[in-house]
Amino acid sequence: MGQEPVETKWVGKRIVRPDGVDKVTGRANFGADMNLPGMLEAKILRSPHAHARIKKIDTSKAEALKGVHAVVTGADFPELKAASVDGGEAQVNLKDLGENLMARDKALYDGHAVAAVAATSASIANDALDLIEVEYELLPHVIDVEAAMKDDAPLLHDDMFTSGVEPQPKKPSNIAARMEFGAGDTAKGFAEADVIVERTFRTAATHQGYIEPHAAVAEWTEDGQSRIWCSSQGHFAIRSMTTALLDMEEAELRVMPAEIGGGFGGKTTIYLEPVALLLSKKSGRPIRIVMSREEVFRGSGPTSGSVVKTKIGATNDGKITAGEVELKYEAGAYAGSPAMPGCMTAFACYDIENAKVVGYDVVSNRPKCAAYRAPGAPMTAFAVESVLDEISEKIKMDPVELRMKNAAKEGTRALYGAKFKQIGFEETLKAAKDHPHYSAPLGPNQGRGIACGFWFNIGGESTANINVNPDGSVTVVSPNPDIGGSRASMVLMAAEVLGIDPEKIRITIGDTASIGYSGLTGGSRVTFAVGMAVVEAAKDVVKQLCERAAKIWEVDFEGVEWRDGAAHPASTNVGDFDPLTLGDLAAQAGKLGGTVVGASSINARGAGPGFGTHICDVEVDKETGRVDVVRYTAIQDAGKAVHPSYVEGQMQGGVAQGVGWALNEEYIYNDDGQLENPGFLDYRVPVTSDMPMIDTVIVEVPNPFHPYGVRGVGEVPIVPPLAAVANAVSHAVEKRMEQLPISPPRLLSIIDG
Amino acid sequence: MGQEPVETKWVGKRIVRPDGVDKVTGRANFGADMNLPGMLEAKILRSPHAHARIKKIDTSKAEALKGVHAVVTGADFPELKAASVDGGEAQVNLKDLGENLMARDKALYDGHAVAAVAATSASIANDALDLIEVEYELLPHVIDVEAAMKDDAPLLHDDMFTSGVEPQPKKPSNIAARMEFGAGDTAKGFAEADVIVERTFRTAATHQGYIEPHAAVAEWTEDGQSRIWCSSQGHFAIRSMTTALLDMEEAELRVMPAEIGGGFGGKTTIYLEPVALLLSKKSGRPIRIVMSREEVFRGSGPTSGSVVKTKIGATNDGKITAGEVELKYEAGAYAGSPAMPGCMTAFACYDIENAKVVGYDVVSNRPKCAAYRAPGAPMTAFAVESVLDEISEKIKMDPVELRMKNAAKEGTRALYGAKFKQIGFEETLKAAKDHPHYSAPLGPNQGRGIACGFWFNIGGESTANINVNPDGSVTVVSPNPDIGGSRASMVLMAAEVLGIDPEKIRITIGDTASIGYSGLTGGSRVTFAVGMAVVEAAKDVVKQLCERAAKIWEVDFEGVEWRDGAAHPASTNVGDFDPLTLGDLAAQAGKLGGTVVGASSINARGAGPGFGTHICDVEVDKETGRVDVVRYTAIQDAGKAVHPSYVEGQMQGGVAQGVGWALNEEYIYNDDGQLENPGFLDYRVPVTSDMPMIDTVIVEVPNPFHPYGVRGVGEVPIVPPLAAVANAVSHAVEKRMEQLPISPPRLLSIIDG
Repeated sequence: MGQEPVETKWVGKRIVRPDGVDKVTGRANFGADMNLPGMLEAKILRSPHAHARIKKIDTSKAEALKGVHAVVTGADFPELKAASVDGGEAQVNLKDLGENLMARDKALYDGHAVAAVAATSASIANDALDLIEVEYELLPHVIDVEAAMKDDAPLLHDDMFTSGVEPQPKKPSNIAARMEFGAGDTAKGFAEADVIVERTFRTAATHQGYIEPHAAVAEWTEDGQSRIWCSSQGHFAIRSMTTALLDMEEAELRVMPAEIGGGFGGKTTIYLEPVALLLSKKSGRPIRIVMSREEVFRGSGPTSGSVVKTKIGATNDGKITAGEVELKYEAGAYAGSPAMPGCMTAFACYDIENAKVVGYDVVSNRPKCAAYRAPGAPMTAFAVESVLDEISEKIKMDPVELRMKNAAKEGTRALYGAKFKQIGFEETLKAAKDHPHYSAPLGPNQGRGIACGFWFNIGGESTANINVNPDGSVTVVSPNPDIGGSRASMVLMAAEVLGIDPEKIRITIGDTASIGYSGLTGGSRVTFAVGMAVVEAAKDVVKQLCERAAKIWEVDFEGVEWRDGAAHPASTNVGDFDPLTLGDLAAQAGKLGGTVVGASSINARGAGPGFGTHICDVEVDKETGRVDVVRYTAIQDAGKAVHPSYVEGQMQGGVAQGVGWALNEEYIYNDDGQLENPGFLDYRVPVTSDMPMIDTVIVEVPNPFHPYGVRGVGEVPIVPPLAAVANAVSHAVEKRMEQLPISPPRLLSIIDG
Repeated sequence: MGQEPVETKWVGKRIVRPDGVDKVTGRANFGADMNLPGMLEAKILRSPHAHARIKKIDTSKAEALKGVHAVVTGADFPELKAASVDGGEAQVNLKDLGENLMARDKALYDGHAVAAVAATSASIANDALDLIEVEYELLPHVIDVEAAMKDDAPLLHDDMFTSGVEPQPKKPSNIAARMEFGAGDTAKGFAEADVIVERTFRTAATHQGYIEPHAAVAEWTEDGQSRIWCSSQGHFAIRSMTTALLDMEEAELRVMPAEIGGGFGGKTTIYLEPVALLLSKKSGRPIRIVMSREEVFRGSGPTSGSVVKTKIGATNDGKITAGEVELKYEAGAYAGSPAMPGCMTAFACYDIENAKVVGYDVVSNRPKCAAYRAPGAPMTAFAVESVLDEISEKIKMDPVELRMKNAAKEGTRALYGAKFKQIGFEETLKAAKDHPHYSAPLGPNQGRGIACGFWFNIGGESTANINVNPDGSVTVVSPNPDIGGSRASMVLMAAEVLGIDPEKIRITIGDTASIGYSGLTGGSRVTFAVGMAVVEAAKDVVKQLCERAAKIWEVDFEGVEWRDGAAHPASTNVGDFDPLTLGDLAAQAGKLGGTVVGASSINARGAGPGFGTHICDVEVDKETGRVDVVRYTAIQDAGKAVHPSYVEGQMQGGVAQGVGWALNEEYIYNDDGQLENPGFLDYRVPVTSDMPMIDTVIVEVPNPFHPYGVRGVGEVPIVPPLAAVANAVSHAVEKRMEQLPISPPRLLSIIDG
């Protein structure tokens, strides 16, 4: 038996969002909105070549242009050490980070930064870029992941030797790493199968597509008190990466979080901050750098394109007997694709005795990939859920039924090692089956697909401060940028513990100097982990308030209990005292030893894994190859939806991104390795008119490790849509979709072919 | 026996000041330096009349001017409640605060704000002020404190009845309060005296003269997340006063501290903030208001002008047998002069058996007075120390000797009630006597004066946060604006406890949302009280670090001791472990439970009183009446000088201000009650060429209530100079100075007279 849901008064309420008015009135300040006296604008020169040796950079003409204050190239940075640095979620290779930020010996992709100019205006800075003379020696390039893996492929790094292979090869390669794990005996498993399906699936590199381009304002000081304002998914990680690259101490840099116009994983790393700070140092002036949309596409990281071979066997009564996945993920120009989480999530929805996954992390002449919502998982889910769909066809079993038969549940040991505690996967399948959508009739040229998805969710280092103001109102400080509504969720959890109306609580995001270190806003961790820190800080406040009531009443601490926002005698034996509200106690804080401040710092463990099941109906225009998503239902276990509107929004947003990935989004390169569609006109994300209203069903199976049962919700919803859409299209056209995006020309050629 | 000085490694070191480079490079941002998108500039219309009924204000023409976005008058503010509000050091009368901020029915002084305009530029706003039509009915006015006390004086407030008189008069009066206290029997004391001196002394209203005029930037939001940027002596008090006046909750307003260009008490209250916020609400735009120097003089609070009658009797061998003081202090237009601290400090330096003090708090048609460094004390010190000087002449006793004979010491019960613990007054007298200055020969037309001074110093509510960064550098958050070097002092104290180099520590001032409530930067309290909070927070950090070392070593917490910035086994019995430095433990903070954050909140008690003795040499030009201070030595007990350069700076700054007060500064009114010298050309503060290098001697008699023995030092140094200068001039011209400032025309008339 698992944990029962906790009864709550505020957690679960749809309060007005704290960032709402600021954002709709345009008052919210994003990364580019900071303005400092004497500030210069900076622009970045980027390589037009996919692969080229930089023989010489002459910046003298640019420096001589009136209005130009400073130019920097890779040579201006401190020497890059072979070290790893805290990138928030994971350790990051410092050398790669620095070289990606600004090329040193070689430009490794079209868009790779090679120099930067600070000038009195953006137009002068742009003019100066044209005056920088870079002598390139063109090198052969490789874009495609499978081409890059070939023995004779152009090498990006002479010193890269495949890890994970014993013995480690002595010949350099574009394969950064090979990984493999498994359980049981797949040969035996396949032998037991009545039906085996094996296919190879391909997905394109897709960009996170956040509305707000990267931007940073930096002010360097001579005395170790530099400042950066930027929008990011974690200003502490910005601080650690920037200081590591510039040989500073962390305390010498204060990073201020701006509002963030979307990140989805893409704002967990740095592109501009150390460049801006170095330009500030060189010019003695504050610096602002704002990327154009083109720069975002060419110079920041998309997620990996992939090739995923999948083989699954099952019996006629629907038991999966074996599964194998072999995936090849594009890392971009430096090692570090999400091949590992791709492998780990591939079979995580299912309890499979015999399974094996092999992954390759492969570099090629593309921008270094960055995290993108459930990194690596949507591609393997596309493959595995497509194959399961085909198996359900072959054995004539309802596809939900097939999944139900093999569903991971409490006690299942996932292939990647974890033994699941209470999880809600079966509940999402049941909700799908029971949903009217699942049995609604389909029209002509329509198809229905279902698919499931999994994400780990993480916890990690988190802090929170709560200050009780003299008038009894309360201020919460969160250490994490609010991307998906965490401010509202923190307020609700604080209100729950303190027992006061959320209207009495205001929340701000603390900068790196104002609050202790916290991990990234990523991994679907904030509402869970920082939420736990807020709960701890609120409990700290309640404890202090009870201590003060005990002092006033001259009773033992145990004689006081906190409920409904006030200290009460714990029993009639304690005495007959009027309750002391938070406001009463706040008003006399001074007399009782000073203002009441709650602080907490934790490393949150026990983030409950998340599962979702999606149902998608499409209608295919067989004349044009256009696919319309006509109905979509996303079902997900949120553990406990702290603010249900935000959870629904996360689910809807994930679906929209997944639909774009499935149908239209892709990086298109010409033969010279140049990106041909670096803008939203040619890189087509779904717009409102492309999407139906996405129906959502929140399932709540409490996470036993969180006081209110919370699980992360931000990443799961992007995992199923690739397969759900592809399965729906496959049924509509009665041909299996093996490659994304299912763009009109591609689908037309399949229909016609 | 008192507490011995504590041995320290860092406390007492003259480290580079954290605000230094920013200030000398011009990069530091003061109140007027904030800039928000769409910001409007606002200006304030001020009454040209000393006393007038406001019959009507017509703002229509101003509102119609192109570029004007909003106009507010007193009528736009919420109705003023009869309540008191936290003004940081003390409770403030909300109604007076609001009316002083913007006149309602009556304008009570030349410069009283009556309306404000927000426009796209400062010049348009100024033009619009001219278009506001105010219909005034002129009323008779009164400027002088003694004139205001007369029965037939023009009344400022019909509803003011003198408090402190039994029974309370039923007839309204300009005397807001009468206070009296004493000890022993003064009639008996005077009867025992061999010599009695009685004189009446007068001082002029003087302004704090901070370099930075008041300025505020405000942004109102519809959803309770308004913001104000301003320079003040306490952003928490700005928040409490502003929200009280605008009927907001404290959590609905975030106040950000700017750097402050001097306050000296004058920035403990509000003039602009609610006006700016209301204009922002009305216009929907951010608002900036910056006072001109003229507005600072006319519209912000100086300290009281005073009339102090003093009578002291002593025996021929120098024992003071009785003392009486009767003081009358100008409060300005609303009650609240520093009459009470004037009374309390009058005899605080001395152990007098028979003493009595009577004080009057008197309103007149002047700007409401504000706190000014040791509020109220310099005027009574001027009187008492002048009379003692005269007594020492009469009984032919060395003036230091006379004071030594009667000096307060450990165990003395001060007239105001406190029984002194370990104090350092005698030590300052001894240091004065031993100082070469005291016995140096004087030239022609020169005179030497000595005088002593006392200030209580306070403690109060204080918070501090310390965050240990992953790389082992440390960030301290202080809740208090740094006026006198508190950032450096906090860093030194944190370094002392943590045992690390101060270079590893950076400090910021937290805004009202980032850290818990703390009292004002005032009362000479910050280094003492917030310093104690920092020490507590640092101890919290050390405790956590030791707990983690204990966990790693698998030993009891008691088995670990912290020294030299590292955890060590407390004894050889514990085991043979290598020390774990703060950096070692910070690097693995995540594994050990999350980042290390220390937080503290205290109400600091036991601020040690401060005493000083000053020696002043002047040279008088008998032709012109000009007085030159030719040598000055300030001696003060600092308890422990955390950063001696700042302590010396405080002493020198106090002397400079006291010399200005003594020699030149005064508010000059014409017959219509209009201020005639609202600018630094006519209100003459000492400039560098007026002052000698001021020698300082820091005496260190530890305050037993502070871990390092710290006492406040900021206010004592302004107490003795008025008397020290006056005594020196009295000796030079052989006539007793009874009135300040001793400006050339006044002195000339005395010399000639």
